[in-house]
Amino acid sequence: MPNVDLAKRAYDHSWRLDPIVRSLLDTDFYKLLMLQMIWRRHRDVPVRFSVINRTTSVRLADEVDEAELRAHLDHARTLRFTNRELIWLGGNSFYGKTQIFSPDFLAWLGQYHLPDYELSRTADGQFRLEFAGSWAEVTLWEIPALAILNELRSRRALSRLGRFELDILYARAKTRLWGKIERLRQLEGLKISDFGTRRRHGFLWQDWCVEALKAGLGEAFIGTSNVLLAMNNDLEAIGTNGHELPMVQAAMAGKDEAALRAVPYQVLEEWQADYDGNLLIALPDAFGTRAFLADAPDWLADWKGFRPDSAPPIQGGEEILDWWRARGRDPRERLLIFADGMDVDTIETTHAHFKGRVRTSFGWGTNLTNDFRDCAPAPMSELTPISLVCKVTEAAGRPAVKLSDNVAKATGDPTEIERYLRVFGQAGRDQRSVRV
Amino acid sequence: MPNVDLAKRAYDHSWRLDPIVRSLLDTDFYKLLMLQMIWRRHRDVPVRFSVINRTTSVRLADEVDEAELRAHLDHARTLRFTNRELIWLGGNSFYGKTQIFSPDFLAWLGQYHLPDYELSRTADGQFRLEFAGSWAEVTLWEIPALAILNELRSRRALSRLGRFELDILYARAKTRLWGKIERLRQLEGLKISDFGTRRRHGFLWQDWCVEALKAGLGEAFIGTSNVLLAMNNDLEAIGTNGHELPMVQAAMAGKDEAALRAVPYQVLEEWQADYDGNLLIALPDAFGTRAFLADAPDWLADWKGFRPDSAPPIQGGEEILDWWRARGRDPRERLLIFADGMDVDTIETTHAHFKGRVRTSFGWGTNLTNDFRDCAPAPMSELTPISLVCKVTEAAGRPAVKLSDNVAKATGDPTEIERYLRVFGQAGRDQRSVRV
Repeated sequence: MPNVDLAKRAYDHSWRLDPIVRSLLDTDFYKLLMLQMIWRRHRDVPVRFSVINRTTSVRLADEVDEAELRAHLDHARTLRFTNRELIWLGGNSFYGKTQIFSPDFLAWLGQYHLPDYELSRTADGQFRLEFAGSWAEVTLWEIPALAILNELRSRRALSRLGRFELDILYARAKTRLWGKIERLRQLEGLKISDFGTRRRHGFLWQDWCVEALKAGLGEAFIGTSNVLLAMNNDLEAIGTNGHELPMVQAAMAGKDEAALRAVPYQVLEEWQADYDGNLLIALPDAFGTRAFLADAPDWLADWKGFRPDSAPPIQGGEEILDWWRARGRDPRERLLIFADGMDVDTIETTHAHFKGRVRTSFGWGTNLTNDFRDCAPAPMSELTPISLVCKVTEAAGRPAVKLSDNVAKATGDPTEIERYLRVFGQAGRDQRSVRV
Repeated sequence: MPNVDLAKRAYDHSWRLDPIVRSLLDTDFYKLLMLQMIWRRHRDVPVRFSVINRTTSVRLADEVDEAELRAHLDHARTLRFTNRELIWLGGNSFYGKTQIFSPDFLAWLGQYHLPDYELSRTADGQFRLEFAGSWAEVTLWEIPALAILNELRSRRALSRLGRFELDILYARAKTRLWGKIERLRQLEGLKISDFGTRRRHGFLWQDWCVEALKAGLGEAFIGTSNVLLAMNNDLEAIGTNGHELPMVQAAMAGKDEAALRAVPYQVLEEWQADYDGNLLIALPDAFGTRAFLADAPDWLADWKGFRPDSAPPIQGGEEILDWWRARGRDPRERLLIFADGMDVDTIETTHAHFKGRVRTSFGWGTNLTNDFRDCAPAPMSELTPISLVCKVTEAAGRPAVKLSDNVAKATGDPTEIERYLRVFGQAGRDQRSVRV
């Protein structure tokens, strides 16, 4: 046995491509849940998804090589769901339910591949990366597009480090994460999951993070949003629904303001026709949480819970607790999922604040899977995560809009935003900086 | 190319022995310098070296398996200096001097192997590990014996950890060392070397530490005491002389008190007959620094410097500065080497204290190569280093004695210690705890 494995060395140094995305299951579980509903009800609605870098100070197109980006996007388009992946999706139980995905949907997935993309550079150093087509075809691009861009950015940074500096970088990142885990371990009754796929440093690093959470948190670690990592590590896949459902359907509502106002609840009616139990989690902030709660139907108070996603966690949670109580429901039987830019400090304070008053669960994203700040031996700005999203920007021939509780997270055409604000109101919206 | 290298896996999991010491050069440079002088002048003096665990609370014979210990000691006895090692010793320049080792000595080294050992267990859970024979044969056992015992203790601890826990352990140790290096980097004019062979966590870890110092400290890192690592990494091998020289010769002096009093200077006269320049470093504390300086001949004030080894660094250093000044020498042209249990805090304060007043250099030992305290996910006492030494205990048929400036570091027969104290006096000796 030689000291140097010549075949491995040659392969490591000369591979054509080290693909960032190697499986269509390397995505967030909520995309598959939403996709099944979209495929059943709205599969042909024309949509456009656009990558948006909210951290405009970072000129992404200067940091990431366009040819490399194309190579990874092209590789992702060659992927198909494999037989064993489809068998696992069909045979696994999610949230205690078996056969959550129907055989006809799985058959459709079996022939699915990611559609084409549009890529160019803008004058201000960003990429214009967009995906247009039918909703059922396009929606899955969100996660691989973000994961590819973020990992290409990390790789660019890493390529400037020597072997020893890389060793220090990862030693520090591991030490930091384990320190966070030791703090989280103190929190009695904590429930936490990995939500870090889209903004991760890299796939293998996310895999390490999941292994660390499993080893360090035991039962408190309830699973990962990443379907591939869930399958590989025999964990629960975690997720429910996202903003694209109300955003597309709001655009479909056109000029009819009553129809627009009804969209957020209509989406959830469709959701509960397809899913039940622990999957009944509402995302209230697409067009402002205050407006959403004010007009919400009583049946929504019987849902499992909410995922406040842009209000400060304690303030946003309290607003929902008040609403449950006003509807005569006991919050202690309900669940709040916090997943907006959480890190150990905010998890600790939020957990302590709501302990005994409502059930809570945390989705830990960028600060779990991409916290390399100050880990390199010398400062490297490319290792500071950016606020990169891939949002639906057009649907049914109209601009798509998100208002959010945080004005800084609003997306869409300014004229349309104005119109949505007239319909849903400004109440409870606020301007806060978005870090990740 | 398979994902699993079957040959490597089988080898990794079934090797007969993973030797801790794989080369006779895996020793401290001062042993080779001393050995040449011993071989030239005192090669046949009968001596006995004994391993002494000063951390009596640790029952070493309960933590380390005797059969494993024998296997490693036996393996060390099979080692010979290889041709390329001898060529390097003969052809390399040390401290700017070429041919520091004479051809006849190198020829003798070429046929050398470690002699037999005596190993048994004591009633109080320690090993009695001793080496008896002619001084030139026995002396080299000191470093491999200590390195083997310390690494067996680490390995025992590591064998109780899973793959993931090991990953965290090393990530933390690397992060800690790099943090220390970042502090040391701030010290202008620092000169530091690795002195951590004897108490190291393991050979490969020491190798990593040396690589880290090289990468992190640049010119401030002047070399390593480990001859093998110096050769492999193209560094300067660092070292001068140790306590065994005066200890053996003091025993040889027998009952003659005038001869005994003369031993410390007689040893240094022999040293300067064989070496010069930067190798003229005196170790003053074998029988108490105060007594040593009081009676020291004037020519010693022209030596390059001192290595105070058991007094607190600032106090011990100031005493030597006073002595130089009293002898009319300018301390700014002299060197103090500090190497007794140093770590970043004491290096910082000592460096700052003497800056501009005397040249200083630091030998960083146990706290460099074996600082794993609190690095395991759960506390493991076996990762706390112990104060293990291998000292000459008999020479020329008499007990050997070290008084030291620290009463806790004295070794030898109590009656003989009393006699030495009558000869050399108690002045300046103190009791301080010995951590490593």
